[in-house]
Amino acid sequence: MNNPSLELLFEFLRFPSVSTDPLRSQQVGACAEWLSSHFQSIGLSSAVYPTPGHPVVVARNAAKPGRPTVLIYGHYDVQPEDPVGGWSSAPFEPEVRDGILYARGSADNKGQIFAHVRGVATALAEHGDLPVNLIFLVEGEEEIGSPNLEAFLQEHREALRCDVIAVSDTGMVAPGVPTLTYGLRGIAAMEVWVKGPSVDLHSGIYGGAVQNPATVLARLLASLHAVDGSVAVDGFYTGVLPLQEWEREAWSRVPFGEKQIEASTGVAAVGGESGFTALERIWGRPTAEVNGIGGGFQGEGTKTIIPREAFAKLTFRLVPAQEPAAVLEAVERHLQSQCPPGVTLDVRHGHSGSPYINDPESAYGMAAQKALQRVLPGVGVALIREGGSIPIVNTFERVLGVETLLLGLALPNCRAHAPDENFPVANFEAGMALNQALLEEIASAYRQKAGA
Amino acid sequence: MNNPSLELLFEFLRFPSVSTDPLRSQQVGACAEWLSSHFQSIGLSSAVYPTPGHPVVVARNAAKPGRPTVLIYGHYDVQPEDPVGGWSSAPFEPEVRDGILYARGSADNKGQIFAHVRGVATALAEHGDLPVNLIFLVEGEEEIGSPNLEAFLQEHREALRCDVIAVSDTGMVAPGVPTLTYGLRGIAAMEVWVKGPSVDLHSGIYGGAVQNPATVLARLLASLHAVDGSVAVDGFYTGVLPLQEWEREAWSRVPFGEKQIEASTGVAAVGGESGFTALERIWGRPTAEVNGIGGGFQGEGTKTIIPREAFAKLTFRLVPAQEPAAVLEAVERHLQSQCPPGVTLDVRHGHSGSPYINDPESAYGMAAQKALQRVLPGVGVALIREGGSIPIVNTFERVLGVETLLLGLALPNCRAHAPDENFPVANFEAGMALNQALLEEIASAYRQKAGA
Repeated sequence: MNNPSLELLFEFLRFPSVSTDPLRSQQVGACAEWLSSHFQSIGLSSAVYPTPGHPVVVARNAAKPGRPTVLIYGHYDVQPEDPVGGWSSAPFEPEVRDGILYARGSADNKGQIFAHVRGVATALAEHGDLPVNLIFLVEGEEEIGSPNLEAFLQEHREALRCDVIAVSDTGMVAPGVPTLTYGLRGIAAMEVWVKGPSVDLHSGIYGGAVQNPATVLARLLASLHAVDGSVAVDGFYTGVLPLQEWEREAWSRVPFGEKQIEASTGVAAVGGESGFTALERIWGRPTAEVNGIGGGFQGEGTKTIIPREAFAKLTFRLVPAQEPAAVLEAVERHLQSQCPPGVTLDVRHGHSGSPYINDPESAYGMAAQKALQRVLPGVGVALIREGGSIPIVNTFERVLGVETLLLGLALPNCRAHAPDENFPVANFEAGMALNQALLEEIASAYRQKAGA
Repeated sequence: MNNPSLELLFEFLRFPSVSTDPLRSQQVGACAEWLSSHFQSIGLSSAVYPTPGHPVVVARNAAKPGRPTVLIYGHYDVQPEDPVGGWSSAPFEPEVRDGILYARGSADNKGQIFAHVRGVATALAEHGDLPVNLIFLVEGEEEIGSPNLEAFLQEHREALRCDVIAVSDTGMVAPGVPTLTYGLRGIAAMEVWVKGPSVDLHSGIYGGAVQNPATVLARLLASLHAVDGSVAVDGFYTGVLPLQEWEREAWSRVPFGEKQIEASTGVAAVGGESGFTALERIWGRPTAEVNGIGGGFQGEGTKTIIPREAFAKLTFRLVPAQEPAAVLEAVERHLQSQCPPGVTLDVRHGHSGSPYINDPESAYGMAAQKALQRVLPGVGVALIREGGSIPIVNTFERVLGVETLLLGLALPNCRAHAPDENFPVANFEAGMALNQALLEEIASAYRQKAGA
């Protein structure tokens, strides 16, 4: 191998920095120390900050007036490698096959954040300086929900003040298509328990005269949707921003849709809210999903009982500008109003995160588009949202008050969180170039703003 | 103890004849041998017939022309004693406290069948003969669904030919109330699986564009009932006999209803099909019950998936003259017609048994009523149906072509299948008297029929 940046990435990937595994907290810490040393070796000041959990690494160049401050966020922790048997090569022994790098963390997120690091290293080696004031914020708890990051941001708010944030933890809609993600769905979780008799009842002795909690639960869940696939809860859509014409037009050109969804999920036909395409349903419309349901007899064969209780685990994906707390309240009100006498309904609210959206044509949004176009010319930039949630982006907006640019280079088949996670070497190299182009374009946009 | 019949019952109860437990098959067999010897000791001919499972004991007196043949059915096997810790005295060491006999099998069914045996013993000792030709058929597999009894009946059909069958494996609606059960519900079982994507999907990445199998299942189950609590399946009620005025009137006088159901189940309010009382719903109306439901994430907290599949276990309690196979077909047709594109529905039909009804005012029905009234005077005979199913009663009707009289003496709180199963000594003694009265009344009815 004759690629020093790739060799360094291999070193980074060899740390089994699995944040969920208490037995590996030492390796997580060692990974943070390695990264911080590397930051210092390329000419940045850097420190490892302890938290109640895994440490945060913060690195920066010397700030100078007259240029913008850019914060690049990433994470050095990774998902567990389970199931180990599913891997074609050892998860923590990086291997390149046919130009594709295989390792846990290659796409999510070590490969992507390290492309930024090596882009900065290259720029510093060539020019001795960067076009911006730069802060790297690389945490070790993203895969466990960043439990300590908000407090860290609050505590270091002044030191982390910046003009814009860049995150490369998303993907490209298709190979070779430069992709800017300008929106994310939020989430709100709820668990519901329908409780009836004090014990499971004999369905012969009592059946017909006692409400069956599993039947009631089914009716409650069925009542969440209208025939047209929309959510039939009063107040659920409060605040939902209608899709703009330009968005629908832009998404219609994305080379990903019903056919690809059917192929990758194995369903015979997509479904969902009428009046919207599959991508519009995922990126631009809120949902009510049953993640788990249970109650009564679970074994083989038959047991003739009326179960004493039944539960469902629900999550709602939210779009701008729904409020998670308001959605949970509306759903609880709806369910309670549908619940018949003879059973009671316990509702437990779970975690939540707000949806996110920024303007892809803001000054920095346009800088991101230009940078993507420079590195991946030939195909126009795909402006997309994603259906998932990255709660930290909302925290940045709330605590630091700035927008986040989401420019990821992972491919749809990167297998994040699964065996054989991978990232093309070419995308790693494109990421280094993207970092340099992005910082230049942001500096240029800042100058234009200042001049205007 | 100065009661030889009770002492003998103690011997019978001490056998742990748990038919579900392969480690106890020897004790089950020993119990059959003991019973057969006892039959011989009281003057009947008796034999133990092996089956592929546990043996059947058949005993009889010498048949004489000019009198009816009565078959008394019962079972000598018992439920497991689990949970052992719930018992106040050892389950297989019978104990009388305050006039109540506690032991596994005391009510279900050793105490009740043995009351018949001792009634016969008493009559034989006093009169040297019985008023009828008598066959005792006592099996050892009732608690595991009588898997070998139908074949036994077919094989010994000629030898078991009879005019009427009596079974004491039911209960009294309240202490002191003579009770004749003239109907039982049937049952039909079904398992349904809604299958969608080939794997659990990320609910952010795909949620909104893919049918959620748990949601579809909920809608399917919700579609089984109308708002008024009736079953909303085309053809479900085909053949249902409307409740007769005399039945509704008789049941309205039974000292058991909504208050007792609420107290014994712990529900705040009964529910069910409108237009019917709680007893009418249980005894006279068919149901669609969810016995179990499951799918997706079952653990603590949240997992944001669209489950690949979800299932429900259903049973339908049927009333005369619904056909189990026709009901299952109607329900399957209904569910398939409701199932949207993007998921498939697997339906598996389970076991079934027909409902049963006989005329409590038939010649032998009246004989049973008179016998009950003789033994428990002062309160009128309660004519009831039961909501549960005793499939063997249908088999008798089909194979032997005669009606079954269900006259049980267990009390509502007899705790059959549970710890501290019990049977009042007074009810055991009433059962002995009931046997003698029943055989006399049946003989008298037979003579009247013959004379008419």
